[in-house]
Amino acid sequence: MKFRSFVCIIALGTTIALPTFAQDNPAIGQRQGQFKLFVHNFGLLGGMAQGRIDYDADMAQLAADNLFYLTRHDQSRLWPEGTDSASVSGTRANPAIWENLDDFVAKFGALQTAAEGLQQVAGGGLDAMRAGFGPVGQSCQACHEAYRDEAS
Amino acid sequence: MKFRSFVCIIALGTTIALPTFAQDNPAIGQRQGQFKLFVHNFGLLGGMAQGRIDYDADMAQLAADNLFYLTRHDQSRLWPEGTDSASVSGTRANPAIWENLDDFVAKFGALQTAAEGLQQVAGGGLDAMRAGFGPVGQSCQACHEAYRDEAS
Repeated sequence: MKFRSFVCIIALGTTIALPTFAQDNPAIGQRQGQFKLFVHNFGLLGGMAQGRIDYDADMAQLAADNLFYLTRHDQSRLWPEGTDSASVSGTRANPAIWENLDDFVAKFGALQTAAEGLQQVAGGGLDAMRAGFGPVGQSCQACHEAYRDEAS
Repeated sequence: MKFRSFVCIIALGTTIALPTFAQDNPAIGQRQGQFKLFVHNFGLLGGMAQGRIDYDADMAQLAADNLFYLTRHDQSRLWPEGTDSASVSGTRANPAIWENLDDFVAKFGALQTAAEGLQQVAGGGLDAMRAGFGPVGQSCQACHEAYRDEAS
């Protein structure tokens, strides 16, 4: 009986104390992978928009095409229940996402629309690219402000 | 003089001994992000092809569309020189990639073609999806055998 109690206590303790890590759910690394690719392209375009990188029409168009394709990747299997920052370490996905899924999806839709707009103009000169880049940045920011935790 | 020599030795030692990690070059995490998204979709389709997951025409089409879009993401800025597994820890990208860039690009082109073929048939029944899935798997494998290190 003593051994059984000990095992039960250990088991209970394990259940309560065991932290859940992001790597336990591949969807977290997968969606973070998508954001890394956003950064890959957004960073180049942002650098050109801000004058830190010389504007290059071909490179700008390539990065805008990339953003367009990336935003076509469906999100439905990347945000499973239980992968919020209150449940799992290693993610900045605020639980508010799952309380406001319609709004979250709408905000991603705004990014899709903005990326499509940017794709139309990115190779047409710095001013045109800047005008198309603005709404992309705004749609990123709107979603981050609502649903991304502060960096720890 | 003694202090200067000491500083020089420390500086030299630091240069030689400091390991280079994958996180020092964002392109590595970014391209790994793309592979994670490949797995996200390839895993579902492979599960259906092998009968481990029930075939669902809508889900299969969604995953195939995702693979199509992902394979349109340009690779030119994701494989900078010096990000091979002999130079950097945390990557399985064999140095042979950079010695055979034309072949590496051609192998990615084969994946693009196969993904386009899969997209045409993925929602058209299990047999059609399987037929389209085969060439995708083969193109992945051909590149991995040539250019990906064994898992450590």
